[in-house]
Amino acid sequence: MKHALSVTREQDFAAWYQAVIAEADMAEDSGVRGCMVIRPWGYGIWERMQKLLDADIKATGHENCYFPLFIPLSYFEKEAEHVDGFAKEMAVVTHHRLIQQDGRLVPDPAAKLEEPLVVRPTSETVIGAAFSRWVQSWRDLPVLINQWANVVRWEMRTRMFLRTAEFLWQEGHTAHATTQEAVEETMKMLEVYRRFAEECVAMPVVAGEKPENERFPGAVSTYSIEAMMQDGKALQAGTSHFLGTTFSSAQNIRFQNAEGQQELAQTTSWGVSTRMIGGLIMVHGDDDGLRVPPRLAPYQIVVVPMLRDNDEDAAIIDYCAGLVAQLNALDVFREPVRALLDRRPAKAAGKRWGWVKKGAPIIIEVGGRDLAGGNVSVLRRDRLYREDGKLDSAILAKDDFVAAAPEMLEAIQQGLFAQASERLQANINRDVADLAALKAHFDASARPGWALVNWAKPTGAALDKVIEWLKGEKLTLRNVPLDAPAAEGACVFTGEPAVERVLVGRAY
Amino acid sequence: MKHALSVTREQDFAAWYQAVIAEADMAEDSGVRGCMVIRPWGYGIWERMQKLLDADIKATGHENCYFPLFIPLSYFEKEAEHVDGFAKEMAVVTHHRLIQQDGRLVPDPAAKLEEPLVVRPTSETVIGAAFSRWVQSWRDLPVLINQWANVVRWEMRTRMFLRTAEFLWQEGHTAHATTQEAVEETMKMLEVYRRFAEECVAMPVVAGEKPENERFPGAVSTYSIEAMMQDGKALQAGTSHFLGTTFSSAQNIRFQNAEGQQELAQTTSWGVSTRMIGGLIMVHGDDDGLRVPPRLAPYQIVVVPMLRDNDEDAAIIDYCAGLVAQLNALDVFREPVRALLDRRPAKAAGKRWGWVKKGAPIIIEVGGRDLAGGNVSVLRRDRLYREDGKLDSAILAKDDFVAAAPEMLEAIQQGLFAQASERLQANINRDVADLAALKAHFDASARPGWALVNWAKPTGAALDKVIEWLKGEKLTLRNVPLDAPAAEGACVFTGEPAVERVLVGRAY
Repeated sequence: MKHALSVTREQDFAAWYQAVIAEADMAEDSGVRGCMVIRPWGYGIWERMQKLLDADIKATGHENCYFPLFIPLSYFEKEAEHVDGFAKEMAVVTHHRLIQQDGRLVPDPAAKLEEPLVVRPTSETVIGAAFSRWVQSWRDLPVLINQWANVVRWEMRTRMFLRTAEFLWQEGHTAHATTQEAVEETMKMLEVYRRFAEECVAMPVVAGEKPENERFPGAVSTYSIEAMMQDGKALQAGTSHFLGTTFSSAQNIRFQNAEGQQELAQTTSWGVSTRMIGGLIMVHGDDDGLRVPPRLAPYQIVVVPMLRDNDEDAAIIDYCAGLVAQLNALDVFREPVRALLDRRPAKAAGKRWGWVKKGAPIIIEVGGRDLAGGNVSVLRRDRLYREDGKLDSAILAKDDFVAAAPEMLEAIQQGLFAQASERLQANINRDVADLAALKAHFDASARPGWALVNWAKPTGAALDKVIEWLKGEKLTLRNVPLDAPAAEGACVFTGEPAVERVLVGRAY
Repeated sequence: MKHALSVTREQDFAAWYQAVIAEADMAEDSGVRGCMVIRPWGYGIWERMQKLLDADIKATGHENCYFPLFIPLSYFEKEAEHVDGFAKEMAVVTHHRLIQQDGRLVPDPAAKLEEPLVVRPTSETVIGAAFSRWVQSWRDLPVLINQWANVVRWEMRTRMFLRTAEFLWQEGHTAHATTQEAVEETMKMLEVYRRFAEECVAMPVVAGEKPENERFPGAVSTYSIEAMMQDGKALQAGTSHFLGTTFSSAQNIRFQNAEGQQELAQTTSWGVSTRMIGGLIMVHGDDDGLRVPPRLAPYQIVVVPMLRDNDEDAAIIDYCAGLVAQLNALDVFREPVRALLDRRPAKAAGKRWGWVKKGAPIIIEVGGRDLAGGNVSVLRRDRLYREDGKLDSAILAKDDFVAAAPEMLEAIQQGLFAQASERLQANINRDVADLAALKAHFDASARPGWALVNWAKPTGAALDKVIEWLKGEKLTLRNVPLDAPAAEGACVFTGEPAVERVLVGRAY
């Protein structure tokens, strides 16, 4: 069976990933170091993610705001741990004017900023400063806000969607009167992310707490959702942080409590980024390109008229336009169906394979014979081939297809999730008893998946030693799953009595 | 009559503008030079603008993309006129790391960029570079794209929404095979902006061509929509540029035409920004705060229960919740109605005036007497007071109000537009015969509005002389309206035979 991409997942997963992005017209190198151009199909998927996640964020009581791109250095200086985490990778604005010099443009030495500005890598500091203005009394709490924005982290090794110097995300920031409320908020948003990943992206995830060494700089505790890519590696797809009073003390977010005393607010932050698109590709893509879950597909059903430059063409186009109108009048997932008539002058076979590579969930082809019989040819992107290796194109009566379309889209969404869930569950080794077994597990296969192991939650130097060993094996601790069974026996790393279970794996 | 703001439009228009922004919780200074924080009510209006304008942009065949925030200096060097227009106000990134020095954070001298990066002031150069990759043949044209993004222009004097160092906008960029197509695109998007301003923002505008001196740097021709603020000044609320081959020659956007020859593409660009929110405030605001046109209001109808801390409270809240559910099930302007139950613990009168200042189109109050009678008290923000100066609150049967609500919202939308249109038309002086009369017109009043005058369309030095004179009077040429009557007689500036009519006015 010949596939639409020039490289398969089996041959070279990293090259396959780049090929999907290129062949599905999702994104490309921009020529600007570490920055990509997100093209319409990739951006369309992001717009769908934004729409669905934004509704969840608003439904949980948050309001959108917009805060400055630039952050003065003095804001960072107030929180040492936060600075340590980000100082190495910040883009710094130092001048506000250019002049010509020897025929080249250069920053004008006379227009040097008194205080350099950082391009936000994340906005705790500048949003904390706003919160300190907004919060005076317990009556002003909680403050529940979110922003959709671009951020910049000067990464040395970049990879499209997964790690780019500039990326797009949402960052939620909240302030509360009590620790309990702030922790509840942290967990609530982790759950919002889990549901979004599973129900919209059809990407099963493990929600859990990050170990100490993987915490967000300045956080008291960090939680993540971790997804398994088809090469067995983990992708951290969203994080939720309980920040305690780290930023409220740095930015002076104080309130008078009901008893008249001054207290520091408890804050949280949480974010999901365009990285999620990288996850979508590596969870659902196959050797013919991307497969987009219907809830996220910019177009769920693409109708391709098979034209022959003859008298019948106009009738075929009319028939297709009628079909698209019928489909767009339907609802699925409580939204209108998104169907597209692909009128471009290109050849039908080229268009079909273009949509296969882009991963449109359902591709409909209509030729003269379909027109005559009142039929359509239906190709489901989630099951492209029959067992004999031929394309699994089914001929259905047009009205039967229309009636079945919403259910078919739901079945595709569920099918993609089921397939990924099965893979996730099948690739977590829960039977690793000690360090030798752990090493053996990861040495045994090129795509070993993860191991869920008993662990004693060491801290400080003991944790450093574990991390050092893991580094040598190119492994990382992902998280302590919220729903893991209770620990039993000895920690695989330290031999001490285990207190919980932690996921170990290679990661992006 | 006492108003909700501490300053009236009549007393001090600039102070009134700031008061509306503050009292309606729209935005505030961020502490970062020239950058503001857009708060939920202001950002909610921007989200509504985005939603409606984005639909228009997509309906005219454009797709959204995302391009890098940073632009290498070398991209700018290719287009001299463009550089001249923006070099004086660009934020320049020169370093990619910070280090500690004497207890302060400073840019790391060892992490200086080889080529400084500019924070985009507009994206013609970086998008042109992408177009040059995408366009090879006439079959690749037209390219029709748009992006929603933040941009930075280092303005020395900033004013919230109107002129900020960072602002949010959409910028459309297109490439075409022929001049005619590109000019048609330029005019099509000008018309999209005109309709958006008038139908959604309820802000009447004059669409026309900018004079030579007001063109976008690098444009062959620039068109704008100009709105009149309540102080008679003009606000340029959107622009559409025909760029000819300026950027295609700088960025090498070439295609093989149907005859096999290489040609440069013809490009356009067009943008609308958060400045539109400043226009909305200055067109519709009154001495009690903002008035948001219903199509743009984050909440169109706000329901305030009048609670008394007694047994009846629960029944009042139920009644209000039922009302909100009834309203949200209705459609208006082909979208669901947006009604909100304001459950905050604050006092009802304070909440009422909060919503008046924010400009919610309809405010409903429900107390014990309304509950008993099955009624609601209705306050329309567009007609707050009766002739005797008392609040014009009407008691309606609840179900009658529900049935009438969509029409009431439509009436408010139309009423705001009609009021602004009348003011615009009444404040354009079309009878100015010569320079002395022009000067007299603008000297006669503190809020003289505009003059539409005959003009000979001078260029070069002759135009410079006109601009010089206008500058002395603090006047500007706004645009040559597309729908102005034909010119007749002599140009008011040069005395030469007039060829068209140009709008003159003070401007933001």
